[in-house]
Amino acid sequence: MNINVPEVKVPRIVIVGCGFGGMELAQQLRNAEVQIVLLDKHNYHTFQPLLYQIATAGLEADSIAYPIRKIFKGQKNFYFRMGEVTQILAGENKLITNIGELKYDHLVIATGSTTNFFGNTDFESQAMPMKSVTEALNLRSLILQNFERALLTTDVHEREALMTFVVVGGGPTGVELAGAICELKKHVLPNDYPELDFRKMRVILVENGPDLLASMCPENRTKAKEYLEELGAEVWLNTGLAKYNGMLAETKNGKQLRTLNLVWAAGVKGVIIDGLGAECVNQRGRIIIDEYCKVKGYQNISAIGDVATMSCEKYPNGHPQVAPVAIQQAQLWAHNYLRGIKQQAAVKFDYFDKGSMSTVGRNKAVVEVGKIRFGGFLGWFTWMALHLMLLVGYRNKIVVFINWVWNYLNYDRNIRLIIRPFSRKET
Amino acid sequence: MNINVPEVKVPRIVIVGCGFGGMELAQQLRNAEVQIVLLDKHNYHTFQPLLYQIATAGLEADSIAYPIRKIFKGQKNFYFRMGEVTQILAGENKLITNIGELKYDHLVIATGSTTNFFGNTDFESQAMPMKSVTEALNLRSLILQNFERALLTTDVHEREALMTFVVVGGGPTGVELAGAICELKKHVLPNDYPELDFRKMRVILVENGPDLLASMCPENRTKAKEYLEELGAEVWLNTGLAKYNGMLAETKNGKQLRTLNLVWAAGVKGVIIDGLGAECVNQRGRIIIDEYCKVKGYQNISAIGDVATMSCEKYPNGHPQVAPVAIQQAQLWAHNYLRGIKQQAAVKFDYFDKGSMSTVGRNKAVVEVGKIRFGGFLGWFTWMALHLMLLVGYRNKIVVFINWVWNYLNYDRNIRLIIRPFSRKET
Repeated sequence: MNINVPEVKVPRIVIVGCGFGGMELAQQLRNAEVQIVLLDKHNYHTFQPLLYQIATAGLEADSIAYPIRKIFKGQKNFYFRMGEVTQILAGENKLITNIGELKYDHLVIATGSTTNFFGNTDFESQAMPMKSVTEALNLRSLILQNFERALLTTDVHEREALMTFVVVGGGPTGVELAGAICELKKHVLPNDYPELDFRKMRVILVENGPDLLASMCPENRTKAKEYLEELGAEVWLNTGLAKYNGMLAETKNGKQLRTLNLVWAAGVKGVIIDGLGAECVNQRGRIIIDEYCKVKGYQNISAIGDVATMSCEKYPNGHPQVAPVAIQQAQLWAHNYLRGIKQQAAVKFDYFDKGSMSTVGRNKAVVEVGKIRFGGFLGWFTWMALHLMLLVGYRNKIVVFINWVWNYLNYDRNIRLIIRPFSRKET
Repeated sequence: MNINVPEVKVPRIVIVGCGFGGMELAQQLRNAEVQIVLLDKHNYHTFQPLLYQIATAGLEADSIAYPIRKIFKGQKNFYFRMGEVTQILAGENKLITNIGELKYDHLVIATGSTTNFFGNTDFESQAMPMKSVTEALNLRSLILQNFERALLTTDVHEREALMTFVVVGGGPTGVELAGAICELKKHVLPNDYPELDFRKMRVILVENGPDLLASMCPENRTKAKEYLEELGAEVWLNTGLAKYNGMLAETKNGKQLRTLNLVWAAGVKGVIIDGLGAECVNQRGRIIIDEYCKVKGYQNISAIGDVATMSCEKYPNGHPQVAPVAIQQAQLWAHNYLRGIKQQAAVKFDYFDKGSMSTVGRNKAVVEVGKIRFGGFLGWFTWMALHLMLLVGYRNKIVVFINWVWNYLNYDRNIRLIIRPFSRKET
């Protein structure tokens, strides 16, 4: 059965995924003579850079999730359908989804990325991922549940495992999450659990490579490590994780750790939909696109953002998987589409890198914009201001701002709620 | 195994449940020479009067749930353990819980109430209850999911069922929920679903008795009905629900309704723990207590709040199941406990009724305080101010206030998020 969408004479552009890329593209095309059908398995856009604050009880989900229908209120050529695409039938210009089939004239895949366990089923079944709102809420529940359990046990080893946090992966997510857990340890949890000895709580960040934040400049990499250590984290560089059975983690160089809290932030892969040729997807699970965002071998199928990889002179292995790339690719796609209608030649993608930043804790962040580098309070303040600007919706900006001011002044994280207890069986 | 709580020489008072009653009691005893152990299956206190705003996307869960450990931060004689009590072994002064056993010197049951389906398993399996945060979140998801489904179907009957909302029970919860759904219909959903015909959306409040808000004065009962009808609800008085199979509802007087959204707010019963004698529990599932809140036949077991019922001259069938009764009974219990230590005689419970109020929609509420009655904007404003005052925590007050101002000015409900889709199988 077909998905119930009006049949119109203008071309139908189907966008799969309402992350930064999909959202931007649908907005860019608001005045175009097209029918836009956006599909997403959720009815909200997720502001992913702040997921770690959901996980660490600093923000509630509604602050960083925004209803898709509200974003596009009043846009006449826009149709949203909540559903999950299971297959592309490129020969018939058709998608198969869990809510029916859908024809397209142009298809833009903007499904983003998900956690990559690199095929290790032990990690997959035992480690906590943090790439969606639900996963972040599960992690929050687990952290709080484990402290409740730590109070109940009289077994020293079990308590040690319950109070040991291992974050695998020293990219921005791993660094920010490890920093936020350290702040919980320093300012919040000792108030909640005066019966526990917090000298026994450990936060360990494990990174395969020789540096944290490998995409930043050397001085910021070092600074991030210093910040984390000041906050009480242990940073283990050049350390890969070999095994984890849900209780005992073992690194490749033979160190063992008892932990019931292991977060996997060590890699992502594209969210691939079945049906594209195998030659379109690289070994990192990303769709190979040309400099116009078109998928290799297809005229009317494109991909943008985290799910896609484009090789160019400056970025031979593809651009970084960050929001600005997705947004700029969406803008390029819309621009080229409109040029195409006017019989103008398409322009190639040219990524404008506005810089990058990462926050570790209060008054601790690293920022680089071109040759300019700074950190400390100014970096942290810049990080906050920018994230507030980028958040969708004024109410969300206000609520997040209040939470941040509140947490800053009170050294607090208010949202220490176990609304849905996490249980490994259920997921 | 015993729950891990320090063994001390002072009497141990175990409180089960951190609703309004249990929370107040633990606070009242903060300076007493006792050890307080509070058990609750959640790690948060729920401000139940605003659950309907969670369900109708007006507020997020964190605004009305408050971490128990934070409430009691710094209280030296207080111990919280997250767990569910499964049995009372009164002969041994002991509780059995899912986290171990616990001895008590005094036991205070403050477990509150839950939805009463009066033994009808069809209603129980098919109707939506709304007595906990999770249930309210499930209801929110269901409402939004059903509108997404309404867009997808081409079957007129199915769409009708998806867009028909039946609320059973004309007490405060039913009235407030029906009013809030009407406001979604009027101001919010048509923006989200311009493709649907909202003249087809129905909100029906079904009440067994001859009046809404039976506990209020006749003029306010009438006014509440008028308010609801102005907002577009149908109010069916003197109408009991006979059957509901998940799709078709039938009233006792033979009316049929296709609906996939049926909310049961037609009754509550006490949350009873096994182990008390059958003679202690009445046919409405409430524990019979004397005028000192002691459970019939036990010297060191008391019950307070919704779970308890006390017969007295003014309230021969027990007090209303509202927060002020629970709070005043908690205060009485603490007062009598302290008097007992000083060998003073216990005093009897004397409920001071501060009045009652109920809100239907913007600028629409009914208030009565003794002989004073008012409604309209003033009633609505009073309702808001009082609820803000009663909410636990300043951050919550601020966030709720901002949401209310925002929603009022923008005719909006921002939190239209399906974070965890509701599926009947899972629950």
